[in-house]
Amino acid sequence: MPATTCSIRFPRLLLTGAAGGLGRELRSRLKPHCDVLRLSDIADLGTAAPGEELAITPLEDRAAVLNLLEGVSAVVHLGGVSVETPWDPILQANIVGTYNLYEAARKQGVRRVVFASSNHVTGFYRQNEVIDADDPMRPDGLYGVSKAFGESLARFYFDRYGIETVALRIGSSFTAPRDRRMLATFMSYDDLERLVVASLTAPVVGYSVIYGMSDNRTKWWDNTKAAHIGYVPQDSSEPFRAEVEARQQTLDFNDPAVLYQGGPFVRTGPFE
Amino acid sequence: MPATTCSIRFPRLLLTGAAGGLGRELRSRLKPHCDVLRLSDIADLGTAAPGEELAITPLEDRAAVLNLLEGVSAVVHLGGVSVETPWDPILQANIVGTYNLYEAARKQGVRRVVFASSNHVTGFYRQNEVIDADDPMRPDGLYGVSKAFGESLARFYFDRYGIETVALRIGSSFTAPRDRRMLATFMSYDDLERLVVASLTAPVVGYSVIYGMSDNRTKWWDNTKAAHIGYVPQDSSEPFRAEVEARQQTLDFNDPAVLYQGGPFVRTGPFE
Amino acid sequence: MPATTCSIRFPRLLLTGAAGGLGRELRSRLKPHCDVLRLSDIADLGTAAPGEELAITPLEDRAAVLNLLEGVSAVVHLGGVSVETPWDPILQANIVGTYNLYEAARKQGVRRVVFASSNHVTGFYRQNEVIDADDPMRPDGLYGVSKAFGESLARFYFDRYGIETVALRIGSSFTAPRDRRMLATFMSYDDLERLVVASLTAPVVGYSVIYGMSDNRTKWWDNTKAAHIGYVPQDSSEPFRAEVEARQQTLDFNDPAVLYQGGPFVRTGPFE
Amino acid sequence: MPATTCSIRFPRLLLTGAAGGLGRELRSRLKPHCDVLRLSDIADLGTAAPGEELAITPLEDRAAVLNLLEGVSAVVHLGGVSVETPWDPILQANIVGTYNLYEAARKQGVRRVVFASSNHVTGFYRQNEVIDADDPMRPDGLYGVSKAFGESLARFYFDRYGIETVALRIGSSFTAPRDRRMLATFMSYDDLERLVVASLTAPVVGYSVIYGMSDNRTKWWDNTKAAHIGYVPQDSSEPFRAEVEARQQTLDFNDPAVLYQGGPFVRTGPFE
Amino acid sequence: MPATTCSIRFPRLLLTGAAGGLGRELRSRLKPHCDVLRLSDIADLGTAAPGEELAITPLEDRAAVLNLLEGVSAVVHLGGVSVETPWDPILQANIVGTYNLYEAARKQGVRRVVFASSNHVTGFYRQNEVIDADDPMRPDGLYGVSKAFGESLARFYFDRYGIETVALRIGSSFTAPRDRRMLATFMSYDDLERLVVASLTAPVVGYSVIYGMSDNRTKWWDNTKAAHIGYVPQDSSEPFRAEVEARQQTLDFNDPAVLYQGGPFVRTGPFE
Amino acid sequence: MPATTCSIRFPRLLLTGAAGGLGRELRSRLKPHCDVLRLSDIADLGTAAPGEELAITPLEDRAAVLNLLEGVSAVVHLGGVSVETPWDPILQANIVGTYNLYEAARKQGVRRVVFASSNHVTGFYRQNEVIDADDPMRPDGLYGVSKAFGESLARFYFDRYGIETVALRIGSSFTAPRDRRMLATFMSYDDLERLVVASLTAPVVGYSVIYGMSDNRTKWWDNTKAAHIGYVPQDSSEPFRAEVEARQQTLDFNDPAVLYQGGPFVRTGPFE
Repeated sequence: MPATTCSIRFPRLLLTGAAGGLGRELRSRLKPHCDVLRLSDIADLGTAAPGEELAITPLEDRAAVLNLLEGVSAVVHLGGVSVETPWDPILQANIVGTYNLYEAARKQGVRRVVFASSNHVTGFYRQNEVIDADDPMRPDGLYGVSKAFGESLARFYFDRYGIETVALRIGSSFTAPRDRRMLATFMSYDDLERLVVASLTAPVVGYSVIYGMSDNRTKWWDNTKAAHIGYVPQDSSEPFRAEVEARQQTLDFNDPAVLYQGGPFVRTGPFE
Repeated sequence: MPATTCSIRFPRLLLTGAAGGLGRELRSRLKPHCDVLRLSDIADLGTAAPGEELAITPLEDRAAVLNLLEGVSAVVHLGGVSVETPWDPILQANIVGTYNLYEAARKQGVRRVVFASSNHVTGFYRQNEVIDADDPMRPDGLYGVSKAFGESLARFYFDRYGIETVALRIGSSFTAPRDRRMLATFMSYDDLERLVVASLTAPVVGYSVIYGMSDNRTKWWDNTKAAHIGYVPQDSSEPFRAEVEARQQTLDFNDPAVLYQGGPFVRTGPFE
Repeated sequence: MPATTCSIRFPRLLLTGAAGGLGRELRSRLKPHCDVLRLSDIADLGTAAPGEELAITPLEDRAAVLNLLEGVSAVVHLGGVSVETPWDPILQANIVGTYNLYEAARKQGVRRVVFASSNHVTGFYRQNEVIDADDPMRPDGLYGVSKAFGESLARFYFDRYGIETVALRIGSSFTAPRDRRMLATFMSYDDLERLVVASLTAPVVGYSVIYGMSDNRTKWWDNTKAAHIGYVPQDSSEPFRAEVEARQQTLDFNDPAVLYQGGPFVRTGPFE
Repeated sequence: MPATTCSIRFPRLLLTGAAGGLGRELRSRLKPHCDVLRLSDIADLGTAAPGEELAITPLEDRAAVLNLLEGVSAVVHLGGVSVETPWDPILQANIVGTYNLYEAARKQGVRRVVFASSNHVTGFYRQNEVIDADDPMRPDGLYGVSKAFGESLARFYFDRYGIETVALRIGSSFTAPRDRRMLATFMSYDDLERLVVASLTAPVVGYSVIYGMSDNRTKWWDNTKAAHIGYVPQDSSEPFRAEVEARQQTLDFNDPAVLYQGGPFVRTGPFE
Repeated sequence: MPATTCSIRFPRLLLTGAAGGLGRELRSRLKPHCDVLRLSDIADLGTAAPGEELAITPLEDRAAVLNLLEGVSAVVHLGGVSVETPWDPILQANIVGTYNLYEAARKQGVRRVVFASSNHVTGFYRQNEVIDADDPMRPDGLYGVSKAFGESLARFYFDRYGIETVALRIGSSFTAPRDRRMLATFMSYDDLERLVVASLTAPVVGYSVIYGMSDNRTKWWDNTKAAHIGYVPQDSSEPFRAEVEARQQTLDFNDPAVLYQGGPFVRTGPFE
Repeated sequence: MPATTCSIRFPRLLLTGAAGGLGRELRSRLKPHCDVLRLSDIADLGTAAPGEELAITPLEDRAAVLNLLEGVSAVVHLGGVSVETPWDPILQANIVGTYNLYEAARKQGVRRVVFASSNHVTGFYRQNEVIDADDPMRPDGLYGVSKAFGESLARFYFDRYGIETVALRIGSSFTAPRDRRMLATFMSYDDLERLVVASLTAPVVGYSVIYGMSDNRTKWWDNTKAAHIGYVPQDSSEPFRAEVEARQQTLDFNDPAVLYQGGPFVRTGPFE
């Protein structure tokens, strides 16, 4: 059963990255909010359910992306590389790919994008700092830098062309938090759905940035300035705390992954 | 049944604008908090219930207002024009009238005023901005300008004469939100009562400004700096969301009323 | 010799309050910047020099003010009451009068107003505080409240109708500082000219607020956020310091006029 | 039954001030979180329960304090004077004593201190102001000054030696609020426990400051910037409101204890 | 004669983009500060003067850039596209090229980069706003987006690898301001030299951002937070004001180039 | 010849620490501003010149300090330890001593203290950060902690007893800067005099904090919020730059003294 009930209905939504972890979750959850759900990825998307349209589309293929956005009311853009990798795939999927997506939105007249950014655009803040979306970006890797690029690009497309974006700086969206860092960064799938639907249906978003997390007891991110989006998480990492802490009693304070919000990303790479 | 239980009791409260929409609601709700409730308006107030005193008082009548505040412990000032109109009635009721009210408070030794200001003092912020009471005022009409005047005047009467004011920047207080804008601005009557009673009974308020809204999922206003007043809303626009959104599926983004917090006020007038 | 050389020339400038202290100074100083200088006041303006137009115009006369702004390129609005007085003249000249002026600007298509606001909109800050134009207003009297009204109104006319305003929170513009407070608030007439000309000729001002003071050693006001106007004072109260301090060796710290930025205004009135 | 369940377990915790009001509460509540609970005070501590170690230790005795911290995993430092007194006991217990404690932590390799600071480091803010831990300190007495000293010292020991501290600016931790001021400052013992345990077990705290209060309706302190600690109060002063307000219907606004957050502390002393 | 005298001398400086407008100016001005000045560009660099090394190096050629940084003490990175163009050259020179440069710095052990960013990373602020380097970026085109990318990347290379960067958000560095916008954005070549030399020789810069402008009377940018760099401009656009204003008496307020800081960049493109 | 001319004259000024480096400088410079200059220290003060009173007074001697402040109009408090030392002398001179001084001021009715605090209260900020007096204190040693204590104490004596203080966070006041750090922290003796005299003679200072530095090109400290004091430095470290940089071409970035504002203080001690 979907976590959200909402009366706003879109003729055609596009979900990119639909074969990924979050994409598979959102596939069923977004369907009730639209007549047609177009799904794209470079990986296999299985069989189209009723009301679904499937497209295998490499984001770096400009023409293919232009076609992908034809007739679309709004985009949920999860596509691209989602972990720290060598530069070339990040360049192609996240930089060239996001440029292609916004250009296609401009040419096809799409008015709103929900852009999966990442907490890794600010991963070099310490775990004892509470930040908000106006604090300067401090990416923790090339992946984080590419998401910072995407946010800058989205801001430009709003200021120049009026295409609205909600940039979601997603924490850790899994079935459960896996370590003590995720007690702060965890976002349940139901809350992910709440966040995406609120971002799609809020009347006016301009260019807005919001951190994606559940109502966790431990918080690094202050979403006060994004309260206009109407995202109110209902879940929490708290039920998982005892188990997580039991598994990870001690921490190595010489490990930057312990000190910084980005966790292990801050010490991944360089790859050559 | 009143929404608040409170042990602070006033000998005599004055409620101006008692025949208006909010005044009629507060008439019964304030009675339990005082021995005598004095009610004033220029419209008919019906028959005085036990413990009520009625007065037909045009706010622009300086002498009448002076009399009105005699023997009063505190004032809830709802009186005046509450929508965008031509200048002259706003000038008389809201500018001259509010001056008369504060002068009367000074002369009669009244120590606290709960002043019904309005969200329209900041109506020219966009609906994707979250503001607080320290952000510069951006009124959306002559009505909003008159409320900004009232706030400046109140601040002066506190700094100079020690008369305390809580300025309530009221959103939309009705039985239910009427459109998608009101999903953010809605304040239930019970929450209105909570807000007014908290403003009357907080030990020290100095000059404070607070936005009047329920605990809505969509929020444009951050009341953190007014948390000392002790207003914690219990209601929400959320139960009305589905119906409101169903009625108003689409929005015209060329309409300033859609983009700005003030809604239709931002395009009302000029009247000549 | 005028203090400014500037190549921007206006077909017709209007200077209100032209018979007052600052108006008489600006009368000759603004002439080089326009083909026609229209001057208005309720007091005698003497004889029109070449290129001058004179008009006796009570600001509270709506029709007269509408006529006054006909054919005008920009307005320097000094008119109105400039000290703390009883309410009625302030209401008429500063509140009704400023409304009439902006309405006339709207109807006559005037695009920019340089509005003489006052440091008294923030006179209840202490003399050991440094503030800027974004700090909440704390007027020190009814005069200050009326200027706060003017600023709110000007902001609205920009947000709604695109009429630009520079609000000048003028300190003490005289030939010399008269007391120790004016070591902070002094603005020479040459600097006044520089400020007004910069406000008239800056390409884009939107709604801007700037404090009017010379480059005094003692500063209460931080104009950083108004640096886009291009006002750089050249004079200072410093040459007058020794004499002023010699005359006023000691201060009475029980006198609010000593503690607050507004000086004696903070204890003038009430008048009844 | 303890209010917290937590899987992080310390080999040996030290609780100073264990014979005081809060110390007696925490004695049983901290035991489940450690193998050994070492307790110190200058007053009688009774008999050691299983897993307890008792030490009578004057904080001003440098050598004794050095011994006290031997083998300790973390310290909860409640010891010292906790009310406004003449200077000498404050100097010895709170200034010399806190220095001794941090020096001992440095020499013994202790990595974290939970330091009982006080709301009295900011007691000279008004009761109608909402502040956070970054606002400048305004202590309301010598006691408050000594706690400000402790916070500065703790910050230095983190910046220089990496010893982490959470400074708890504790409000009023009793079984119930005793007056209207405590409707804002009240912290239940269960919430005290939650706060101390969260401070001990948060993965990274660096140097952090947090106000200690329950989830009271009236709030003077904004803990947003300390949300990384994971303290979420569960109690409130609200159930006590009616009784407290009934007992204290009126307030004397000439009494600084009514106006300032520090309450009666702001007018205690001087003692000679 | 160079504008700066400085006793800090580098064994080998690298200047990229040395054949461009600013590069040609800096070529002679940086020579006195180093034993060897290595110059690179894709355009012809003429003949090497004594102490110069020339290299034709496309920034998108990873291996060539790696070689280019061998043996270098510090880099002044002007290379790349410096105006709004179609995406592909920006992608290659400014995104891939800047990545190549920082990777080469990492591998070659270069400790400091002076990176020519641009005011166009914030070009969508209005000309009546004064901003500083902590305000969110609002790029005015793909060029501005690419410079925002460079800044994010530089921040990451400092946080992760300790490579220091001063990002210079250069205004308009020419022999003279060409239009009224440049009265605010103008930076003389002597001031450019002062800025670059200060950025190279300041003891500690971490990751710093500074706007590059002369001491113009009209200011949009507040460099207070970068005062540690020690850049104090000595020139000004003021001597050119009269001529510029005479040439451009009137402005078209319907032209976004007049309203926004980025000037004509805000309406350049899209190119397809 | 003194650097300041000022018409405000004090009957009796007290200068503590008069035998120290800064005290010897100020001894002759303060004399023109008072009828009697009382000088105290624990070291020899030589012979009293006309209008001088000499007193050997250990600051930790409460009774002696009480006597010292008898009949005094204002105090310039330089006395105490001024470098990082073991705890005990800091405790006695700077903590006990400063308490004794303020208690004596309270009992003797002295209304203003110019307190020599130190840049070492914020020495753990990095050299690439620009801070102001509202940023949280980060002392770099026990000396810095003791000055932080002095500031808290002074703030309390103003809030509670109305004794005004200007806390001077003095940089490096010598005849010339001695190393590259002092290019930022240098304050000439003439500027020291200007700062002390401005602090003594500003009409209202309440509790104010100001950094003591000359008009150096390199700046770490923003005194905007203290502009009401009227301190405008006239000197600069710039004339010494070439020589200082020549002597100290290279820096060891592994040395915390190079990275932090406090310089070598950040790595002095511990002493046992």
